[in-house]
Amino acid sequence: MKIILAQINVHVGNFEQNFQKIQQEISLAKIAQVDLIIFPELAICGYPPRDFLDYSYFIEQVDLYISRIAKICTDITCIIGAPINNEATSGKKLFNAAYVLANGTIQNVVHKSLLPTYDVFDEYRYFEPAKSVSCVEVGGKKIALTICEDLWNAAENPLYDHTPMDLLMQEQPELMINIAASPFDYLQEDKRKQMLKANCVKYNLPLVYVNHVGAQTEIIFDGGSMVMNAQGELLQEAKYFQEDCLLIEDLTQLISENKIITTTNDIAIQKIEKALLLGIQDYFSKSGFSKAVLGLSGGIDSAVVCALATKALGPKNVLAVLLPSAYSSDHSISDAMALIENLGIEYSHINIEATVKSAENTLADLFHGTQADITEENLQARVRGLLLMAVSNKFGHILLNTSNKSEAAVGYGTLYGDMSGGISVIGDVYKTKVFELAKWINRSTEIIPWNTIQKAPSAELRHNQKDSDSLPDYDLLDQVLHLYIEEQLGLAEIIAKGFDEMLVKRVLMLVNRSEYKRYQTPPTLRVSPKAFGMGRRMPIVAKY
Amino acid sequence: MKIILAQINVHVGNFEQNFQKIQQEISLAKIAQVDLIIFPELAICGYPPRDFLDYSYFIEQVDLYISRIAKICTDITCIIGAPINNEATSGKKLFNAAYVLANGTIQNVVHKSLLPTYDVFDEYRYFEPAKSVSCVEVGGKKIALTICEDLWNAAENPLYDHTPMDLLMQEQPELMINIAASPFDYLQEDKRKQMLKANCVKYNLPLVYVNHVGAQTEIIFDGGSMVMNAQGELLQEAKYFQEDCLLIEDLTQLISENKIITTTNDIAIQKIEKALLLGIQDYFSKSGFSKAVLGLSGGIDSAVVCALATKALGPKNVLAVLLPSAYSSDHSISDAMALIENLGIEYSHINIEATVKSAENTLADLFHGTQADITEENLQARVRGLLLMAVSNKFGHILLNTSNKSEAAVGYGTLYGDMSGGISVIGDVYKTKVFELAKWINRSTEIIPWNTIQKAPSAELRHNQKDSDSLPDYDLLDQVLHLYIEEQLGLAEIIAKGFDEMLVKRVLMLVNRSEYKRYQTPPTLRVSPKAFGMGRRMPIVAKY
Repeated sequence: MKIILAQINVHVGNFEQNFQKIQQEISLAKIAQVDLIIFPELAICGYPPRDFLDYSYFIEQVDLYISRIAKICTDITCIIGAPINNEATSGKKLFNAAYVLANGTIQNVVHKSLLPTYDVFDEYRYFEPAKSVSCVEVGGKKIALTICEDLWNAAENPLYDHTPMDLLMQEQPELMINIAASPFDYLQEDKRKQMLKANCVKYNLPLVYVNHVGAQTEIIFDGGSMVMNAQGELLQEAKYFQEDCLLIEDLTQLISENKIITTTNDIAIQKIEKALLLGIQDYFSKSGFSKAVLGLSGGIDSAVVCALATKALGPKNVLAVLLPSAYSSDHSISDAMALIENLGIEYSHINIEATVKSAENTLADLFHGTQADITEENLQARVRGLLLMAVSNKFGHILLNTSNKSEAAVGYGTLYGDMSGGISVIGDVYKTKVFELAKWINRSTEIIPWNTIQKAPSAELRHNQKDSDSLPDYDLLDQVLHLYIEEQLGLAEIIAKGFDEMLVKRVLMLVNRSEYKRYQTPPTLRVSPKAFGMGRRMPIVAKY
Repeated sequence: MKIILAQINVHVGNFEQNFQKIQQEISLAKIAQVDLIIFPELAICGYPPRDFLDYSYFIEQVDLYISRIAKICTDITCIIGAPINNEATSGKKLFNAAYVLANGTIQNVVHKSLLPTYDVFDEYRYFEPAKSVSCVEVGGKKIALTICEDLWNAAENPLYDHTPMDLLMQEQPELMINIAASPFDYLQEDKRKQMLKANCVKYNLPLVYVNHVGAQTEIIFDGGSMVMNAQGELLQEAKYFQEDCLLIEDLTQLISENKIITTTNDIAIQKIEKALLLGIQDYFSKSGFSKAVLGLSGGIDSAVVCALATKALGPKNVLAVLLPSAYSSDHSISDAMALIENLGIEYSHINIEATVKSAENTLADLFHGTQADITEENLQARVRGLLLMAVSNKFGHILLNTSNKSEAAVGYGTLYGDMSGGISVIGDVYKTKVFELAKWINRSTEIIPWNTIQKAPSAELRHNQKDSDSLPDYDLLDQVLHLYIEEQLGLAEIIAKGFDEMLVKRVLMLVNRSEYKRYQTPPTLRVSPKAFGMGRRMPIVAKY
């Protein structure tokens, strides 16, 4: 059987464009006399469609385009994911389905059994779990066709109390096919391969796995579609972080020859860079913008974001704005200028002093008798935000947010100031990892000035200010944050790991009291197993 | 049987304070020789605890406090809601449970079967549905004890394919008890009573229903706990929008006497006012703040928010700031001053001109050769936001957001400008309803100046600007918005209702392209069945 794993990058809600792409892949496949072409989960509408699924017209569009795809499926079979109405009188309105299209019509429809409803996933919000499952037949082969999470119940302490593959095995399938929307994080590739391998081994079956690629706002899909043998070893693998329609000339032969491939699993920081580049690219291209603006402070965060944006969008599409103040050190400007030169991007110099002074004068009467405090620091940050947003509004550039995850966690940033932007590029990257990322970006040549990497981090909102004046060392801070946010440990559990009690208390207090700030920040490109945003839903008004 | 419906206002995560409240009610009940005291769903930790439920320490706290409550339950039975660990090796980690406490220990635990996972609800994110259900016995009575949504499957096209009450009926209970966290919207009281009545009638059983009261960030619980007879008629009802521990001297007698009460169901606008007042009060008290600041434009939105805040927090706790510009009309200031006088609140006058001018001058070179456009309007709004946030930072007042739902829907507002604030008070109230609310507030005396209500709405960001220059009439706009947002109809369906095609297209386009703005706005007090925020989850980067 000649098959294609059609790992495409679709656009949520863009039926016509997604259809064109699907149609083209099917046409090419037909020319190549392919027997079966497989697209990812919910490929027709994109993943996640979120509350679009509550709208009937949206599902009508899905049905319309599925029938258009079915019509072109002559001399080929196509498996593709789409939502489908639940015709029963009870239960959620929809199923998450895999269509089998052939002979110009719908041959079969399989429903997803296990509906991920954790972290960034909300599937039970929309979908009814499958009422029954059975194998499908393609080219004389009996296939256990499942959808993403359906294969994720093999671990100890499984999240679901039944496993659809156990039922499908009663029909003695010869092959598993899984269509997926498995988002990237820096641990996911390994977890995914382990989980899929566990299925191959448990059921003693080979697997064809087709994943999404591309970013949908904050969620980044990394692709990596693959074929595994019945021992869960890799026989073929599609590319990561790019579209790739992987042609398997003869699946039966591939499996019987059993030539195991070894792939070079990128190191975490390399994956993070690729994910962020894809995240930036797709945020811009899918929202119809091409140009970015950002404030360049001479510090490492904005330097890394600037370097990533330049690589993602091209030097002509990035405008750096320098907004120094009296508290900016000399090297702030020289470091920023060195970066601008290295990247070959446009820049502008905007003086914030007059506007800050004006605002301070305006408030002088009202603030008479009060001490200078965080208010004046925030004011500077907000004047920068205001001026950057004016540039964004005037020229149509999207403002990139440059906050890192450590800052976002402890609230070391100014709402409506440096916390502004259309998208947060490194808001899921801890400060210690931002340093790693900077060094990685510099791996072959100095792009980010070494001085930017080596100097002590500072917000430069008052004289000689250092992050370390108000925050623990980032090495320590990031460890505590990781335990609290990613590992979801409580105060006592973190202290029990050997951290200082006062330190842990202070860090957790800072995280907790910043929920209100994070609520109002831009969507954050997700690269870790627990990012701020839709995957972490903490109360704002609460006792922590 | 002497019972108490303990309709209390708890604070999410505030175990000690919630426990003190619960303990006090139990003590009082014991003095009054009450047989059974009933608290709402998840009363010990508050509803919704959201991702707190992912933290083990949080569940350990729950267990600890449940055992403390059990200890004091001597000579009394207590029913109270709490999360509980799922001890099975598969499934979600928790159940949403109702504890029956008596004789100083845990007598029984009932699990919730139906887990709402739609709109603001995320229960399947955390909880495993009940594996089995059975009745509990209290004071010799066999009781069908259920939790909130368990009774919400009686409608046509039910959301769940089984109904726990159907199973419980096999044990022939004599009474239903339901503990709930049923949030307010202006239709909810009627829907709730209909749904509960349908259960009484279907199962021919009386019902004791205990709901939460109080606001948890955006979600407002309205109370209205009640006793219904087997015909679903009201025998007793607790107060709305306030704590109320309703004592039933003899439940058996109450039911047998069958004296039906008639209550005066408040009109929608009155409910909305009460909900918003409670929402403001609890936002402040539960986050430890007492003082609010807001910008007063002389327009109706800020006037209504100011009047509500003053009623909720007291005149000493509200600071109004006037920030007029060259584009402000004369009556803007006089109307604002009249309101300030009517309310007896403090005010301050801040001139934005110098700061706006400074920012414009700073940008003059960069903007050379461009036309004045929305950028300059946004700049004014952002200078106002910046100055208000400075006041907030300096004096510790929380900035109230004054955007209405119509504006929030179509994006008629400036991000980081007038869209700033800690909480959006009327962001779920359409402009036409804001007018209603203003008139309602003025029902006995003129609080909001009539001129504010009567004049044409304007953002006053350029000369003689009127909202109607860029938006359809609010009457029309709000109808279209309601069909799109609350009714979830698509373009064709709305046009089919008789609206102009171009108008509908334009309105939907405005709503869709403002998702990125709404993502970054403050939490919005929810008073409608579909509010912006956690109950409406639309993609940002998507083709609409």
